Amino acid sequence: MAKTDSNLSFILNKPHDVAFEERPKPKLESPYDVLIAINYTGICGSDVHYWEEGRIGSFILKDPMVLGHESAGTIVEVGSAVKSVKVGDRIALEPGTPCRRCTPCLAGHYNLCPDMRFAASPPIDGTLAGYYVSPEDFCYKLPDHVSLQEGALIEPLAVAVHITKQAEITPGQSVVVMGAGPVGLLCCAVAKAFGASTVVSVDIQPSRLEFAASYAATHTFTPERVPAGENAARLLKETGLEGGADAVIDASGAEPSIQTSIHVVRRGGVYVQGGMGKPDITFPIMELCIKEVTAKGSFRYGSGDYKLAVELVASGKVNVKKLISETVRFEEAEQAFKDVKAGKGIKMLIAGPNEK
Amino acid sequence: MAKTDSNLSFILNKPHDVAFEERPKPKLESPYDVLIAINYTGICGSDVHYWEEGRIGSFILKDPMVLGHESAGTIVEVGSAVKSVKVGDRIALEPGTPCRRCTPCLAGHYNLCPDMRFAASPPIDGTLAGYYVSPEDFCYKLPDHVSLQEGALIEPLAVAVHITKQAEITPGQSVVVMGAGPVGLLCCAVAKAFGASTVVSVDIQPSRLEFAASYAATHTFTPERVPAGENAARLLKETGLEGGADAVIDASGAEPSIQTSIHVVRRGGVYVQGGMGKPDITFPIMELCIKEVTAKGSFRYGSGDYKLAVELVASGKVNVKKLISETVRFEEAEQAFKDVKAGKGIKMLIAGPNEK
Amino acid sequence: MAKTDSNLSFILNKPHDVAFEERPKPKLESPYDVLIAINYTGICGSDVHYWEEGRIGSFILKDPMVLGHESAGTIVEVGSAVKSVKVGDRIALEPGTPCRRCTPCLAGHYNLCPDMRFAASPPIDGTLAGYYVSPEDFCYKLPDHVSLQEGALIEPLAVAVHITKQAEITPGQSVVVMGAGPVGLLCCAVAKAFGASTVVSVDIQPSRLEFAASYAATHTFTPERVPAGENAARLLKETGLEGGADAVIDASGAEPSIQTSIHVVRRGGVYVQGGMGKPDITFPIMELCIKEVTAKGSFRYGSGDYKLAVELVASGKVNVKKLISETVRFEEAEQAFKDVKAGKGIKMLIAGPNEK
Amino acid sequence: MAKTDSNLSFILNKPHDVAFEERPKPKLESPYDVLIAINYTGICGSDVHYWEEGRIGSFILKDPMVLGHESAGTIVEVGSAVKSVKVGDRIALEPGTPCRRCTPCLAGHYNLCPDMRFAASPPIDGTLAGYYVSPEDFCYKLPDHVSLQEGALIEPLAVAVHITKQAEITPGQSVVVMGAGPVGLLCCAVAKAFGASTVVSVDIQPSRLEFAASYAATHTFTPERVPAGENAARLLKETGLEGGADAVIDASGAEPSIQTSIHVVRRGGVYVQGGMGKPDITFPIMELCIKEVTAKGSFRYGSGDYKLAVELVASGKVNVKKLISETVRFEEAEQAFKDVKAGKGIKMLIAGPNEK
Repeated sequence: MAKTDSNLSFILNKPHDVAFEERPKPKLESPYDVLIAINYTGICGSDVHYWEEGRIGSFILKDPMVLGHESAGTIVEVGSAVKSVKVGDRIALEPGTPCRRCTPCLAGHYNLCPDMRFAASPPIDGTLAGYYVSPEDFCYKLPDHVSLQEGALIEPLAVAVHITKQAEITPGQSVVVMGAGPVGLLCCAVAKAFGASTVVSVDIQPSRLEFAASYAATHTFTPERVPAGENAARLLKETGLEGGADAVIDASGAEPSIQTSIHVVRRGGVYVQGGMGKPDITFPIMELCIKEVTAKGSFRYGSGDYKLAVELVASGKVNVKKLISETVRFEEAEQAFKDVKAGKGIKMLIAGPNEK
Repeated sequence: MAKTDSNLSFILNKPHDVAFEERPKPKLESPYDVLIAINYTGICGSDVHYWEEGRIGSFILKDPMVLGHESAGTIVEVGSAVKSVKVGDRIALEPGTPCRRCTPCLAGHYNLCPDMRFAASPPIDGTLAGYYVSPEDFCYKLPDHVSLQEGALIEPLAVAVHITKQAEITPGQSVVVMGAGPVGLLCCAVAKAFGASTVVSVDIQPSRLEFAASYAATHTFTPERVPAGENAARLLKETGLEGGADAVIDASGAEPSIQTSIHVVRRGGVYVQGGMGKPDITFPIMELCIKEVTAKGSFRYGSGDYKLAVELVASGKVNVKKLISETVRFEEAEQAFKDVKAGKGIKMLIAGPNEK
Repeated sequence: MAKTDSNLSFILNKPHDVAFEERPKPKLESPYDVLIAINYTGICGSDVHYWEEGRIGSFILKDPMVLGHESAGTIVEVGSAVKSVKVGDRIALEPGTPCRRCTPCLAGHYNLCPDMRFAASPPIDGTLAGYYVSPEDFCYKLPDHVSLQEGALIEPLAVAVHITKQAEITPGQSVVVMGAGPVGLLCCAVAKAFGASTVVSVDIQPSRLEFAASYAATHTFTPERVPAGENAARLLKETGLEGGADAVIDASGAEPSIQTSIHVVRRGGVYVQGGMGKPDITFPIMELCIKEVTAKGSFRYGSGDYKLAVELVASGKVNVKKLISETVRFEEAEQAFKDVKAGKGIKMLIAGPNEK
Repeated sequence: MAKTDSNLSFILNKPHDVAFEERPKPKLESPYDVLIAINYTGICGSDVHYWEEGRIGSFILKDPMVLGHESAGTIVEVGSAVKSVKVGDRIALEPGTPCRRCTPCLAGHYNLCPDMRFAASPPIDGTLAGYYVSPEDFCYKLPDHVSLQEGALIEPLAVAVHITKQAEITPGQSVVVMGAGPVGLLCCAVAKAFGASTVVSVDIQPSRLEFAASYAATHTFTPERVPAGENAARLLKETGLEGGADAVIDASGAEPSIQTSIHVVRRGGVYVQGGMGKPDITFPIMELCIKEVTAKGSFRYGSGDYKLAVELVASGKVNVKKLISETVRFEEAEQAFKDVKAGKGIKMLIAGPNEK
C-alpha cells in the first residue's frame, strides 16, 4: 500500500457539487482510538442521495462533508489503551460511534442512540479519505483469507444481518424478501445462512431476479400492477407457501411491496421494514391487526451484527465477492457516483487515495 | 335462578331483523363438554356491527344466528370426563373453541386457529340464549366474591389483557391508550395493574376522558384536528414523556389515532393495534422504520388471558363494576342494541332468559 | 412391503423377559386418527433401560408392554376427518400424544403435558409391532428422497432439535456438546445447521470423538480425571474459546460433564441438560449465579420440532444415514437390544414384522 | 448538611482491622463525572464479609480499601459535559461503573462487564467516606418526597429488581422466595409490585416470617429438617400451589433451600439463584431436566434496574422505610458492622461524616 501518504478526501460541498481536497490527517481523540488507512469504500444509496439532494430526512448538509461510510482499512496507529487490534491489522470499519451513556446505549441498543456520530451523516465526515479515526471496538479484524474489498462489503452485510435478526428467522422457515438490490440480496443470503428453507426474492427487474436465483434465493417472483392482495395470493401459490410466509422483509421501500408484504406474511408472522422510501404510505392495518402480524423497523446495525457479518464471510456462508461489480480509483469517485445513480452493477468500490 | 327452563334465544335473521325464538336446549358433544345456563351477557361493538351490517370482514351472516359472546353462566351439566368444574359452579365463558390440532394451536397461539369456532361469528351461534355448551377448559370459575355481572365483563377484560401483553408493558413504563371506550378503559386499567407508571388516555369526547381519569388513567389528552406529528408532540410535552412513550395501544381504530401512535412511541418502543377500523389507512412507515418501532396486532385472547382477567378482578386490581351502566331483561335485548348503537353508557348487560 | 399382515409385537413382560406376541391390529379411536404400518424402529437408551430395569424414574412397568418409539411407517387407514395425510404416505411418527386441554398444552408446551400418552412409557404400548394408531397431526410426511430408515432417525433428531432450540443457538456462536452418543452427535449436527461456528464434541472414547470429527464437530476434546475447572480451562484454551462458550449442551448425563459444562459456558451463556443420569449431583451453583448462566432442562420435543427435523434431513443439512449402524429383522429384536446394551454401533434399526 | 467538609473515610486495612482516615477529596476524572457528598450508606452482607475475611471469591483485599457501596448522596460538583443532574440534586448512587466497550457492555449486560469497577470490591474504594466520584449516568435523582435514607435502600432494592426480572414474573403468577433477609424481603415486595398473586416467604426464623407476612408475603412457610422433596410437597400443599410455583427465587444461598426450590417450581417454571453461599452443592439436576425448569443466576443489577427501583419507591409500590432498623453516626461505623454481624435489625444505615 501507499507510497504517498495523503489524506485526500472526497467532499460534498452542496448537492451535485463535489471536490477532492487534501485535508490534515485526523488525530486520535481518546486512548481507545485507532487511526485507519482506508483501503476500499463501497457506495451506498444514502451517499448517492446526499450527493443529489443534500439531505435525508432531518439530516441536512450545512457545511462541506466527506462522503462514504462502507469501508475497510488498515490500522496505522493505536491509542495507549488499545488492546484488541494492532498496527498492520486489516479491519472492517463500523462507521457509527454511539455515546455509550444514554438509555438505549446502556440497554444494548446503541443503533438507537440519539447522539450517534455516523460517518457521512451531516455534520460528521465520512470515510472517502486517506485516513479515518475510530474507537478500537468498532474495528473488526479480517481473517487473512478475507480480502479488504470483501471487508468493504461488511457494512451492507451488517445491515442485512440486523434486518434478518429483526425478522427472527429460525431454521426451516420461509422468508420473502422484497427488492433485489444489494441489501435485499444480502438479506436473502443471510436468511439462508440462518437456516431458512424457502427464500423468495421479489423484484420488478428480471435481471435482478436472475442474479438473485443464482445467488441465494430458492424462488423468485415478479409482481404485476394489480392490487397487493392479488400479488400476494399469486406469490404464495407459486412458491407453495399457502398459509403465508413466516417472515417478510421489505428491502425496497416501495409502497406496493410493503402492502404486499402484509398480505404475504402468515398469521403470527413477522414483517420487517428494512428499506427507505416514502415517509407515509397506504397500509393494510386491519390485516396486521387480525393476523397478529409483528411489524418492525430495522435501522443500521447494533450489538454483534458486524462481528457476525465478518464471520459469515469468513466461513463462506455468505459470498460478498459476487456483489462487487467494479473497483475504481479514488480519483474516479464522482464518476462512480454517477454510475451507481444510473443503476450500473450491484456494488461499486472506490479505492482509498493511497491504494495503488 | 330459573323457574322456567327455556332456551329462548335472541336471533339475528338479517341486518336489523332480530327475533326471540325458543330453540332446543343444546347437548354435550364430547365427554369434556359442560352445559351452561347463561346468566348475563354484555353487548360488544361486534354484536352491534353484525346487527347493523350482517358481516365483519370475511365473516358473513348467511343463516339466522344467535347473537352475543360476552357471557357468564352457571354449570348445569358436565360430561363424563370433566374434572375442573362441577354442576353449580359460576363461570366466565371464553366463547371461542379452537381445533387444538393445527400449527398455531399446537404452538400455543390458539387465537390464530383458522378453524376457531367463535360464538356469534357466522355461522356459529352465540350466547344470548338460555343455554350454551362449551368444553370445560374454556370455563373459568368465579370466586364467591365476584358476581356473575362482573363475570360477563371478563370477556372484554381478556381482550384488554391480550392487548396489554402484546404491548410488553413492564413495571415503571409509560403507556398511551388511544380511545376511551370499554376496551380502551380496560387497557388503561390492565396497564396500571401491570405496573405502568404513566397511563395516558386519549379521546375526543371530554366525558369519556373524565371517566378515564376517575378510573385508571394518570393523564388524559384531547387531540385536535392537526397533523398527527403535532398532536404527538403536544401529548408528549403535556405528559412529560419527552423522548416518547414506551408503549402505545390503539383501541380506537381511528386513522388519526393510529398515525399519532407511531409519532408518540419512543425509539425501540411497542405499538399495538387493538381496535377495529378502516382496512387501509395512511401510515407513517418510515417513522416506524427509523425508530425501530415494533408494531403488533392483537386479536381476541389466548393462552392464560381469561385466567388472568378473572384474577385481576378477584384481586381488586381491575374494577369492572364501574363499567356496567345498566342490566336489562332478556326481552329488552333489541332495545339494548339500539341504546349501545346510540352510545348510551359504557357497558350494557342483558340478563339470561331464565334470570329473574 | 408386507405379504403377511400381522401385528406381531415385541413385548416386555418384566425386566429381561421379552416375548413376541401376535396382538390384534389396533383400531382408530377418533376421526382424526390414522393407522400406520410400522416399517422401521430405532432402539433408544430408554428402551434398553426399561428392558433391563423395568422402570425409569416414576414410570414403572406393571403389565406387559410393547417396546419401541423411534419409528417410521406407512399410512394404511385414515379416519373420517383426516386431511393432512392419506393412505400410502410414508411418515415419521411422533410417539407421544398430549391431552390438548391442560395449561401446558394450551400454552404450546405439550411436551410438559402431565397426561401425555407416550409410546413405550408404561402403561402405553410402543411401536415395535406391525401397526400403530396415531392422530394425524403427529405424523410427518417424508419427502420421496428421504428413506423410511432415515425416517426412524427423526425421533432422536427431534430430541436434538429440541435441546438445541433450548440452547438458543444463533449463527456464529460457539457450542460445546458433552457426550458423543447418538443424541450428542445429532446435537452437534443441529447446532451446525443452526449456524454455530464452533462445535466442540467432548467424550472419553477416542473412537466416538473420531466419528464426531468426521460427522459435525469442528473440534473434539477428551477430558481427564481432574477437577471440572481444569478440564474446562484446558478445553477453552485448546479450542480458542477463551471467555467461554456461548452454549453448552450436556448429552451425557455424567456428573463430571455437567460440572465442566458450567465452568465452560461464558458469562450470560446457556447450558442445557439434555441427557439422563443420576438424579442428584454436586453442582457449581455459585459459578452459575455469578456468571448469570441460564440453565435449562430439555425433555423430549414439542411444537415444530419434528417438522424441523424432517426438514433438516430433507434439505441435507443433517445426515442421519451415517448414524445407522445396522438394520435387523423384527425377529432379531432381542439380540439387537443386547447389542445396543453392549455398545455396538451408533444406532441400530429393527424392521417391522411385515417388512421383508 | 455539612458544616465541616471532610472526606473522612472508613477503611478496611485487613480483616477485622478498620480505621477512620482523612483522605483527599476525590477529583472528577472525566467531563461526565460528578462529585457526590455521601449522606447515607447501608451495610451489606458483602461489606461484613470483607470486614471479616478480607475476600469474596477471587476478589481479595491487598491494600487498605474504603468500605461501603449502598449509598445516597448530594451532587456538589459536576463535570463540563454533565446534563442530567445539577449541583444540589439528591441522588441514589449505582456503585459499579462498567467499561462501556466490551461485548457484554455493548450488548446491554454491563453487570457482566469483566472490567467493572465496583465500589468496595478490591481494589476499588467504596462509599463510606465524605465524597465519591461517579459518572452522571450512574446517579439517579430522588423525587422530593423520597428521603436520602430511602435513597440508600435503592441499592438492595435494585438487586431485588434484577432478581425478579430474571425470574420473568408476570401478573397473576405465584412466586416462592427462599430467605427473608433484606434482599429476600425486597424480592417479595418487587414480585408483588410486578403483579404476583401469591408470594410465599420461606425462612427458618419465625420472627423474620412474621415480618415478611406484615410486609409483602401472602403466605409464609417454615421448612423442617426433612428431605427437600418433602418440604416442597408440604409447601405446595399449604399454599394451594399444587402443580408447582411459577417462579422460585433463592435469596438465601442455603443448600437445602436451593434443593427445595427445584422441587417447588412447576414444569416449565423459572428458578433464580440470587443469594451467595457455598460454591458447590448437591443439586437435583434430573428434576430440572425432566420438568424443563429454567435456572438462572442473578448478579448485581443492570440496565434500567436502578431507575425502576427509584420508581417503585417513589410510587409507593415498595416501602423501603420499614426495612431501616437504625441510622448511626459515621463514627459508629465499626460498631454498626458488629451489630449487623450479630444479626441485629434488618438494614442499618451509617450517616456520612458531614451529615449532622
